[in-house]
Amino acid sequence: MKAVQVVGYHQNLEMTDVPAPEVTGPFDVIVRIGGAGVCRTDIHILEGQWAEKSGVTLPYTIGHENAGWVHAVGSAVTNVSEGDKVIVHPLVTCGLCRACRAGDDVHCEQSRFPGIDTAGGYAEYLKTSARSVVRIDDSLEPSDVAALADAGLTAYHAAAKAARRLRPGHRCVVIGAGGLGHIGVQVLRALTAAEIVVVDRNPDAVKLASDIGAHHGIVADGGHVDAVLDLTDGKGAETVIDFVGEGGATHDGVRMLRRAGDYHVVGYGENIDVPTIDIISTEINFIGNLVGSYTDLSELMVLAAQGHVRLHTEKYALGDFQTALDDLSAGRVRGRAILIP
Amino acid sequence: MKAVQVVGYHQNLEMTDVPAPEVTGPFDVIVRIGGAGVCRTDIHILEGQWAEKSGVTLPYTIGHENAGWVHAVGSAVTNVSEGDKVIVHPLVTCGLCRACRAGDDVHCEQSRFPGIDTAGGYAEYLKTSARSVVRIDDSLEPSDVAALADAGLTAYHAAAKAARRLRPGHRCVVIGAGGLGHIGVQVLRALTAAEIVVVDRNPDAVKLASDIGAHHGIVADGGHVDAVLDLTDGKGAETVIDFVGEGGATHDGVRMLRRAGDYHVVGYGENIDVPTIDIISTEINFIGNLVGSYTDLSELMVLAAQGHVRLHTEKYALGDFQTALDDLSAGRVRGRAILIP
Amino acid sequence: MKAVQVVGYHQNLEMTDVPAPEVTGPFDVIVRIGGAGVCRTDIHILEGQWAEKSGVTLPYTIGHENAGWVHAVGSAVTNVSEGDKVIVHPLVTCGLCRACRAGDDVHCEQSRFPGIDTAGGYAEYLKTSARSVVRIDDSLEPSDVAALADAGLTAYHAAAKAARRLRPGHRCVVIGAGGLGHIGVQVLRALTAAEIVVVDRNPDAVKLASDIGAHHGIVADGGHVDAVLDLTDGKGAETVIDFVGEGGATHDGVRMLRRAGDYHVVGYGENIDVPTIDIISTEINFIGNLVGSYTDLSELMVLAAQGHVRLHTEKYALGDFQTALDDLSAGRVRGRAILIP
Amino acid sequence: MKAVQVVGYHQNLEMTDVPAPEVTGPFDVIVRIGGAGVCRTDIHILEGQWAEKSGVTLPYTIGHENAGWVHAVGSAVTNVSEGDKVIVHPLVTCGLCRACRAGDDVHCEQSRFPGIDTAGGYAEYLKTSARSVVRIDDSLEPSDVAALADAGLTAYHAAAKAARRLRPGHRCVVIGAGGLGHIGVQVLRALTAAEIVVVDRNPDAVKLASDIGAHHGIVADGGHVDAVLDLTDGKGAETVIDFVGEGGATHDGVRMLRRAGDYHVVGYGENIDVPTIDIISTEINFIGNLVGSYTDLSELMVLAAQGHVRLHTEKYALGDFQTALDDLSAGRVRGRAILIP
Repeated sequence: MKAVQVVGYHQNLEMTDVPAPEVTGPFDVIVRIGGAGVCRTDIHILEGQWAEKSGVTLPYTIGHENAGWVHAVGSAVTNVSEGDKVIVHPLVTCGLCRACRAGDDVHCEQSRFPGIDTAGGYAEYLKTSARSVVRIDDSLEPSDVAALADAGLTAYHAAAKAARRLRPGHRCVVIGAGGLGHIGVQVLRALTAAEIVVVDRNPDAVKLASDIGAHHGIVADGGHVDAVLDLTDGKGAETVIDFVGEGGATHDGVRMLRRAGDYHVVGYGENIDVPTIDIISTEINFIGNLVGSYTDLSELMVLAAQGHVRLHTEKYALGDFQTALDDLSAGRVRGRAILIP
Repeated sequence: MKAVQVVGYHQNLEMTDVPAPEVTGPFDVIVRIGGAGVCRTDIHILEGQWAEKSGVTLPYTIGHENAGWVHAVGSAVTNVSEGDKVIVHPLVTCGLCRACRAGDDVHCEQSRFPGIDTAGGYAEYLKTSARSVVRIDDSLEPSDVAALADAGLTAYHAAAKAARRLRPGHRCVVIGAGGLGHIGVQVLRALTAAEIVVVDRNPDAVKLASDIGAHHGIVADGGHVDAVLDLTDGKGAETVIDFVGEGGATHDGVRMLRRAGDYHVVGYGENIDVPTIDIISTEINFIGNLVGSYTDLSELMVLAAQGHVRLHTEKYALGDFQTALDDLSAGRVRGRAILIP
Repeated sequence: MKAVQVVGYHQNLEMTDVPAPEVTGPFDVIVRIGGAGVCRTDIHILEGQWAEKSGVTLPYTIGHENAGWVHAVGSAVTNVSEGDKVIVHPLVTCGLCRACRAGDDVHCEQSRFPGIDTAGGYAEYLKTSARSVVRIDDSLEPSDVAALADAGLTAYHAAAKAARRLRPGHRCVVIGAGGLGHIGVQVLRALTAAEIVVVDRNPDAVKLASDIGAHHGIVADGGHVDAVLDLTDGKGAETVIDFVGEGGATHDGVRMLRRAGDYHVVGYGENIDVPTIDIISTEINFIGNLVGSYTDLSELMVLAAQGHVRLHTEKYALGDFQTALDDLSAGRVRGRAILIP
Repeated sequence: MKAVQVVGYHQNLEMTDVPAPEVTGPFDVIVRIGGAGVCRTDIHILEGQWAEKSGVTLPYTIGHENAGWVHAVGSAVTNVSEGDKVIVHPLVTCGLCRACRAGDDVHCEQSRFPGIDTAGGYAEYLKTSARSVVRIDDSLEPSDVAALADAGLTAYHAAAKAARRLRPGHRCVVIGAGGLGHIGVQVLRALTAAEIVVVDRNPDAVKLASDIGAHHGIVADGGHVDAVLDLTDGKGAETVIDFVGEGGATHDGVRMLRRAGDYHVVGYGENIDVPTIDIISTEINFIGNLVGSYTDLSELMVLAAQGHVRLHTEKYALGDFQTALDDLSAGRVRGRAILIP
């Protein structure tokens, strides 16, 4: 089959022919790829940033945001059948460790990450596990939802966790109205009645966020902390979800937070650097957020099928992978680039 | 190997030679039995009460409270190794359905129940799954803990669930100080600072419960509801855990419950029959409790290893199965009867 | 001032002149009534059903669903000021008992209930406490929201409690699409992404519920349990909220409930009468629901201001109280009747 | 009455005669002091560190850890009566703001803090509110429990919050085995079955912690992070409660934390300074902890009455206040110094 592979760091990807994956274990699932999201992480892989951490051997196929149709299943697979439309959870997990048994499979002690440390989805077929495939509604197309498999799932996880404490009358600040923030706003609208305040440096992104449901949009131009305080009686918001995590976002974000509030860390880059006296005197919390679980992905697919969550995509043929990466690097992609075999 | 089987309903069990189970699938685990609990359910099986519900074909080996040593494992098993001491969760679950993925494996949509609907542990070896074996501490003996696999696990599940809402100063009434109540009291002592009030018709059982940690013991002689109210300023207890569920226990138990309290149903036999006006005007809850999950069993084994939970057992050689059953029927077993191959 | 009073049981109410209430304690609040809901409970009071339970001395002013403007406040009142628009929580609570201190003021050990056991709101002015008044948004009119103070608050409380466990993909059956069910559906839509299935005997009520947001409407004509099972893959719904509680509703409702599901009891009349074996083998819960807390009422007023919750009302001058009661008795009121002084 | 007052910053306290406080409002409570804890904060007040923050006018009476007997009550007080033994919550709260209504009175928007911003308990009598007094068991003496009113309450709050997530088999690291850590260990023992690992620089403190229930004691001598990792299979502890918060404690503490773990901040001094990439890739949380609520104090007094929590005290006559402060400054107080009028 055709596959797009990393052949060397600081080199372009190359399309090549490789053997199609086959079922060898009872829980194996082979997915015929309908769409594979092109992610900034893919660029970082090519730059060698993941080389040591992943321990992968070159060449290998990348692509960790995948959806498609079930092509073949192992003998013990009971949750999907050949032909089913599925989205693929980014991790392949063991199902036996303490975390997996508690439903917290993201913290699996033996997980693999196709597209990062083993063959991914920039290809015609992907090998994954029964534990990683979520059936999607007939009304959804794999190429439309593929990008929800990782970026969208992370945003869902954080927003849904935040939503558990948000009550009517509460305010939730969303820092960063890019791809993740965009999903986050839609998830908050679906799961809570909280007022959503979006903060971003880009006025267009703020406007877009308002169009999809944010109640207030604030351009981060220096007066944004005061603007949030003005909207919250000077007390700050019950929850901040920070999809940026760099460029001073956390410093500003903490000042927007109300006593006893939750600061959700999702974006990364800088340090959380806050005096312990401030943490205890206001009794605030910092909540880490990694990608969502299998159950989270199932729930996100429900929201997608209900029309609560939509993502703009730009589609490219698999062979046009270089154009897609170039467009992403140059900031020419609106929403998410998707490769279609 | 030797195995004790049901050969016909309303007939005695028979010991016979059957082929020892073998690993055929990647997640199979063969356990060499160290002890198998003799349960009242085993008597009910012989009476044919489970014939239709289980759909099992005779003859088959019973025994659903098992512990021992790992004898062989399938190729994909990572959580136990040959020689490990283990206790066996009573259910074999799929790991793929919605309930399993959320850590709520007791509600697995495709579970099997060795000893009920497939071969159980009255034998030298038992075939189960990697998803059903919990390693136990070196200090524990399989024959000592086997009976915690089902009866004890149910008591743990209810007590631990109740404990999540019990705060210092709260009172928890435990109705029934038999096998399950006995475990329940010990679990409550380990997990909460609540005051424990045990109610039972049998003065010896009440005394025993006090010896293992109940703060108050009340003999159910007609004045027991008033006695609980006296202990609780006339307001009732925040929680009642009813391990009896028959003979009028629920009628009395509800009268012992405080406004906004939780009534945990564990024992069964009669109906919960309460006017909706009483439920809403006092805003009480009735909480169902089935057997515990894999995670529950792991936690219970921690308590056992710490010495927080102990169970009295009477041990019989596997060949003495009939004596064990006869003793159980006649009420001659203190604690739990265990068969040892 | 004018007040409408109970002068004897099994007699009509009478309008009379009584002294206007005055501030005597530091937390007293006098509310100028803008609207008082006419409730079926008011008819029951006249029938003497509450005489013994309330211990009230005749004559007295009824009316327990009140909203208006703050007319005067005691010296220690800090949460409202003269002229504020407010809705009045039905209970006056002590603020000192264990329940009040935990935010669970509905279970206050010393509460009073104006309109039931002391002077209520069928009058020009009502005396209540700072602990019972919730400021409402400028965009809301007291006479439009008054009926949310008790009936609406009960529906909010149950729906919001249920919502805490409802995830995307879950189904919630609402039994009864009358006044409370109507509010319940709107609250569920605002707080969850769960699919809402309304069941009612009245086809018009089912249709109305669909218009305001229920995803499925089922007329209870004998096939309604099967209809719910058909919608839920034969497994039943994760949650049932029963606003009826009589006429066989609970018997049918339990059959609509999925394993591990929650059955919320709100309406009343018949008994919950379910075998304990069914409760434990499916591990279902029965959750009592009384009226909501002060915090619940604050949250409901946020939903009302956001336009998430609307209630149809028919307004009558205070002097037309008899017409309002007659219309209510005869089933001629759509939504809720409101008296306006 | 006698009272010990701040007469100037950087000056010694002085004992003087002042009018005894009297009931003026309906919720006032006058407490005859049985014991007042001497806290390091009192020294900081004298150094002027709180002058600006508290806005207090000199001279005034300090002392914020108080217990005694109810001497007089206002007309609306229903929760205590003259003669009752009570401990005094450090805050006087409004009971009307959103936080108070939700049971979260520590975040009251209008609280006062006797001993900090108004007259405290280094005196014969203290004026507080019905909302601030907790009745204690007959078996407890005010002078024995006074120091639990603030320092102990903070430790209880953090440990009880941590306990909500601690399951059997989890490990909880307690950093700092001084006054607060000492209470924290006892609370964890009472409320959980988690394994407790105490870390402190002082070998005597470590030994004492082991005597009162810690399962493991580690002297912080440079190898302490590795020692914790050794105890936790190299994975770290599910929970860290940091009662130190300075001198590098947080840097070390984070390295002791397991994936998805909770880091409770209680002690303060340095910054939490952690890369966001570490927070998200391990999905850890930082949880702020202020003093406990009224309900927390009620629960702590239950543990004290049950003998679960004990505090060593050194008692001084009120007139010996200077000796007590000098002993505290010089590190000569074991446990807590208490002034007795």
